[in-house]
Amino acid sequence: MTVLYIILSLPAFWHREAWLLALQTYAVIGAGAIGGYYGACLQRAGHEVHFLLHSDFEHVRDHGLSVKSKNGDFALPEVNAYCLAAGMPRCEGVFGALKSPANELLPEILPHLAGPSTVVLLLQNGLGAEPFIAAIDGVREVMSGLCFVCSRKTGPGRVRHEDYGMVKFVEYHADNLARPVSDRLLRIASDYTSAGIETQTAEDYLLARWQKLVWNVPFNGLTVTLGATTRRIVEDPSGRALARTLMEEVRAGAAACGKEIAPELVDQMIRNTEVMVPYEPSMKLDYDNGRPMEIESIYGNPLRAAENAGARLPAIRCLYEQLRFLERRRTKDH
Amino acid sequence: MTVLYIILSLPAFWHREAWLLALQTYAVIGAGAIGGYYGACLQRAGHEVHFLLHSDFEHVRDHGLSVKSKNGDFALPEVNAYCLAAGMPRCEGVFGALKSPANELLPEILPHLAGPSTVVLLLQNGLGAEPFIAAIDGVREVMSGLCFVCSRKTGPGRVRHEDYGMVKFVEYHADNLARPVSDRLLRIASDYTSAGIETQTAEDYLLARWQKLVWNVPFNGLTVTLGATTRRIVEDPSGRALARTLMEEVRAGAAACGKEIAPELVDQMIRNTEVMVPYEPSMKLDYDNGRPMEIESIYGNPLRAAENAGARLPAIRCLYEQLRFLERRRTKDH
Repeated sequence: MTVLYIILSLPAFWHREAWLLALQTYAVIGAGAIGGYYGACLQRAGHEVHFLLHSDFEHVRDHGLSVKSKNGDFALPEVNAYCLAAGMPRCEGVFGALKSPANELLPEILPHLAGPSTVVLLLQNGLGAEPFIAAIDGVREVMSGLCFVCSRKTGPGRVRHEDYGMVKFVEYHADNLARPVSDRLLRIASDYTSAGIETQTAEDYLLARWQKLVWNVPFNGLTVTLGATTRRIVEDPSGRALARTLMEEVRAGAAACGKEIAPELVDQMIRNTEVMVPYEPSMKLDYDNGRPMEIESIYGNPLRAAENAGARLPAIRCLYEQLRFLERRRTKDH
Repeated sequence: MTVLYIILSLPAFWHREAWLLALQTYAVIGAGAIGGYYGACLQRAGHEVHFLLHSDFEHVRDHGLSVKSKNGDFALPEVNAYCLAAGMPRCEGVFGALKSPANELLPEILPHLAGPSTVVLLLQNGLGAEPFIAAIDGVREVMSGLCFVCSRKTGPGRVRHEDYGMVKFVEYHADNLARPVSDRLLRIASDYTSAGIETQTAEDYLLARWQKLVWNVPFNGLTVTLGATTRRIVEDPSGRALARTLMEEVRAGAAACGKEIAPELVDQMIRNTEVMVPYEPSMKLDYDNGRPMEIESIYGNPLRAAENAGARLPAIRCLYEQLRFLERRRTKDH
């Protein structure tokens, strides 16, 4: 956060810094809480960014993007907006910032955007998307950006960035083994840094994904089933006990899949959540607004991976089935 | 059900039958869905029944009780209504038909009602109340009546009986061992039968309580956390899977406490719930109407008993903590 603070206090400096580097062109698929926020930051820092939009296309084409951020508000009145992937240029980086239930659109989209030297970088929670993306025609290199950010889309082309913001970059390897961080990954991470975004890099994609689940598994689902913010959950003894149990089961699932998560991460995630803004994660917003929840990527896929490896995660399964029930019931009610 | 049908088709006959027996006097503590329904049936059959009421006292004193039942509606314009236990006669049977969070009132009430030959019979779900009641001054004999009934209080002195109705009678013994059914228990059960209520008797109090939990643990809590009727839950694959998991954990908890429940009971409970009216159990009604839920008797006490005996019941614990959170949050919201 200190680094972030220094960068943010010197906007003139880091804009200049960014221009000193060879700039990369980026495509962003989806301009919601994640794609809209990070894409806008990159464009503000001078990068050429192309946004593929669906429902918000006309609004963003005509009015651009606007970001309300705890680090300072800004607007981009003009952005490169597209409603069809076929009309977009091939870019050095393609950021998949859809919700996971929409990943099924990627086999239609990515072949238009991915050239021989394109990195497809998935800005998404949960488990299981990278192998699917890596198998799409024309996709050569897949990376993941795990976003530790509280942000939400508040309207067409409008994003509110509420807290945090760090992105952890890591390369996908089909054998699930760790590899030293590549120059390509460092270059993308450096572009994010130069855009005022705190970044980290990691060597083990599967470990990083499971670590991220330590927070996402308890708080995405419990805010839905308990109808409460993260703050209310960690401040309540039962809510905190539930969160801890679910976090420990994520650790057990990771261990079954060969990835060790330090026990201290559980305490750290509880503490972070205590001091964080009272937050409604994306799954809660999706549920409240009648959009599909990311149930399979955050719950179903990790559960199946762990159970196939011989682990039982009964509290996670309990929450998973509750969420599936709520999703199905809502669909029937509408 | 055949027996019940024959009885109900011959009202003149069973009213006469009832008078042939030496009638017992009964006190009913609480005249809601359970006490109101069974107490009214007993009074209609000719028994002397005394009702101890709280919020509904004046209404019931002035207007009596009315029952809408799938077996035929009836009204009792005059009942013996009391607002203080001190004014009531000592009876042969005292039926504790409070919600379990109100059991703390019983040490004030029971010494007024229990004479040397009084049976205190608890019409209540969950685990853990009998040892508490048996320790109250003046209480000699404690029995339990497990009510397999769908009924609800619809207003002061008004009960709607929706489905089922069987009561299983069993004596409490502090050593938790089975004993042959006593004549006293048979006599009370016979009074219920003569009042048109299907009855069973059992020899093992703790086994009967755990068996009853096989239904109560899944459906009381899930109807609250999922905001749905029992029908919706069993008709949904995730709801049914959750119910089954919770039922199997009840079996595991019972086994840890030395009580074996046949695996077939799980299938039978699922099937019963499929054909039952779409039902909102008492816990759902309590939650929706801002009344305390029976969380400790249905979840906390069985969990602690099982965990003390070395069993882990993670799905039940998950549901328990969710319910405690919801109860606490609601209290804060009001």
